[in-house]
Amino acid sequence: MLLHSLCWLLVGFYSQSSSDTEVFKTPAALLINYFFPVFNLGAGYHSESKAKEYKHVCKRACQKAVDRLRAGAMALEAVTAALTELEDSPFTNAGTGSNLNLSGDIECDASIMDGKSLEYGAVGALSGIKNPVLVARRLLSEAQKGKLSAGRIPPCFLVGTGAQQWALTHGIPPCPSEKMATKFSLSAYKRNKRKMELAEKIETEHHFLKRQRTSSGTVSKYIKVSEIVEPISSSLDTVGAIVVDQEGNVAAAVSSGGLAMKHPGRVGQAAHYGCGCWAENAHDARTYATAVSTSGCGEHLIRTMLARECSTAVQAEDAHQALLEAMQNKFIGSRFLASEDGVLGGVIVLRCCKCGDDQSSENLQALLVEFLWSHTTESMCVGYMSAHDSKAKTHISRLPPGAVAGQSLAIEGGVCRLGATND
Amino acid sequence: MLLHSLCWLLVGFYSQSSSDTEVFKTPAALLINYFFPVFNLGAGYHSESKAKEYKHVCKRACQKAVDRLRAGAMALEAVTAALTELEDSPFTNAGTGSNLNLSGDIECDASIMDGKSLEYGAVGALSGIKNPVLVARRLLSEAQKGKLSAGRIPPCFLVGTGAQQWALTHGIPPCPSEKMATKFSLSAYKRNKRKMELAEKIETEHHFLKRQRTSSGTVSKYIKVSEIVEPISSSLDTVGAIVVDQEGNVAAAVSSGGLAMKHPGRVGQAAHYGCGCWAENAHDARTYATAVSTSGCGEHLIRTMLARECSTAVQAEDAHQALLEAMQNKFIGSRFLASEDGVLGGVIVLRCCKCGDDQSSENLQALLVEFLWSHTTESMCVGYMSAHDSKAKTHISRLPPGAVAGQSLAIEGGVCRLGATND
Repeated sequence: MLLHSLCWLLVGFYSQSSSDTEVFKTPAALLINYFFPVFNLGAGYHSESKAKEYKHVCKRACQKAVDRLRAGAMALEAVTAALTELEDSPFTNAGTGSNLNLSGDIECDASIMDGKSLEYGAVGALSGIKNPVLVARRLLSEAQKGKLSAGRIPPCFLVGTGAQQWALTHGIPPCPSEKMATKFSLSAYKRNKRKMELAEKIETEHHFLKRQRTSSGTVSKYIKVSEIVEPISSSLDTVGAIVVDQEGNVAAAVSSGGLAMKHPGRVGQAAHYGCGCWAENAHDARTYATAVSTSGCGEHLIRTMLARECSTAVQAEDAHQALLEAMQNKFIGSRFLASEDGVLGGVIVLRCCKCGDDQSSENLQALLVEFLWSHTTESMCVGYMSAHDSKAKTHISRLPPGAVAGQSLAIEGGVCRLGATND
Repeated sequence: MLLHSLCWLLVGFYSQSSSDTEVFKTPAALLINYFFPVFNLGAGYHSESKAKEYKHVCKRACQKAVDRLRAGAMALEAVTAALTELEDSPFTNAGTGSNLNLSGDIECDASIMDGKSLEYGAVGALSGIKNPVLVARRLLSEAQKGKLSAGRIPPCFLVGTGAQQWALTHGIPPCPSEKMATKFSLSAYKRNKRKMELAEKIETEHHFLKRQRTSSGTVSKYIKVSEIVEPISSSLDTVGAIVVDQEGNVAAAVSSGGLAMKHPGRVGQAAHYGCGCWAENAHDARTYATAVSTSGCGEHLIRTMLARECSTAVQAEDAHQALLEAMQNKFIGSRFLASEDGVLGGVIVLRCCKCGDDQSSENLQALLVEFLWSHTTESMCVGYMSAHDSKAKTHISRLPPGAVAGQSLAIEGGVCRLGATND
């Protein structure tokens, strides 16, 4: 008997812009193995060609994860396989192709969580390693072995050069940074550097001018630099995946190159416990197994602990309504981000429970899986595949024309029943 | 009119050892400006002379914070002053005197949170800076200024060399590591290194012996290395403080040198949002302002998000009972630490609300402050002082003889009313 499993992943990507909260809501739908793309592709910031690349990457990552699941792998291994594929794509802001920081270097964040053991591993500001998720995964499995020599407690979170050293001594090969940079990331860096220099020049001159005018008794009109210099374009296409295996175990992972032109050493949500990903199997106090992965502006996702908030929220009966309220009240309307003029992020959420209409039927061990995504960003690319499917489905969700990114949200989702079959 | 304020801080220190959960419980007591040391000093791991030093440090730190509060400073500034003093003491595992890592270097974690703005700043694995809390504080205040040039989002969490560079460019002076190491930390490092080498030698030899015997058909008896080599002694005397100012604003901070012989780049709870400290003023959805700071084994405190859990818990009517249950169910009995044989940590918690028996009385703006502490470690040193007091009170709380650290807890607390007076 083989119980089918599901890989569900996200490549969040969006452009930034910054009214009143509007919600574009779809009623949750219960359909077996069906998926609801609700919004048509709007006039987005990303070209159609880039969207095509994203869909390809998503498909390949889903396929890798499902191949592992079909071979009997557990959720943790499958989610690692999906993330590795996503990191290897030069089009995503994770692993190869990551945003460059202020010094022109690549520093990556990644984390992984196993819903069964509740173990967790994370790396932050890691350079010179092709697949940061593999280091996070290894930290998790090393911790599962118990204490180190002389009773030392194994780490769950390593950063910077220490994390790189640890990876190398655990057999993970180094990768020169120049191999991880792409033509696109290098040209974006040069363009962003010019914008920054121009913005700083204008700010300095304006400050000087303002002081002169103020001392002569005339108050200068406030000049908004952002009206003259376009804000830097940051590829926020960080990646994440969530998986449920045939035993109903869940796992989640996330990986990110961080914000473009970030300060060296800056760590975002992808390396932050409870913020980048969350996975928790069902147990006595929890009806549903849940897995969540987030993408977006790290500072916003850290301070709202969005992954864990969404995981807790969807224990409510109506997952769609619960996620909608969480995104409205705990993210866009969060007290922790009251001073922000736009709150940017996206989540993919999976919850599942074992079900059976008839306790004595063959479907006793079937899994009812609800999957949802929501974003306040202009767009988000999602893909999913179950072990029933011959290939992955992908979708680019966009806020409808006129909706303000950072202040509006889109929410969609579907349900599938993964049945037990006799093979 | 001056409304008095309170600084309440902790220097957690304990020895490690590892049965069934026992709770040593004291009923919460409501007494004005009185404080309940419940357990007498037991036969602890630390010498009386060290306990004396701890008390002195606590007193000085309380005094610094209260001096600032008396001068009109807000909670955030006062808590920073307390932490700076605690970091400067060579007896604490924070700033000067921090534990050395596996490479013999000092790498510190620190974070701070302002209950009014809910802003947060943190540094991890930071070397060469005397007062890590000042960097965390500066990150917080820089973020309050809004976006950086060209629309970049300011970081809230920096690590490693990037964090050090950021500190230097923001006028925080460097401090050579050798100035931060003490005679005690250096000798502990040498001792721990010998223990580790001995433990690893025994493990290797035993592994070789076991293989020989197994190949000859005899299975060797399992040797527990910890029965031969004593586990490394780790100074876990990390520091934290929580403050409420005259306006009822709360702030919390925490600083730590991390576990002795930790891997370079390891980041503990002191730099982890929601894990090391938490501060949240009262608002529409929260009756009480709360501030929490934690100390102990970072990995245990991260995975249970103890600071935030305790902050949420004490919104219940009976704060003492709520904290007790949180420590039992969300820490010692946490599903996230099910594989651990001992869960080590301590918290200091403050909650307050504006009160007045008679709405028209002069006490209308008085603050009712409840302060609690709890620990699963052998001992914990706490101190507190209100602006009413001429000097700080300190107390070393210990688990009673026979209680098993990591599986038992102590909880104590008190209440004081900080009244409004006409000055």
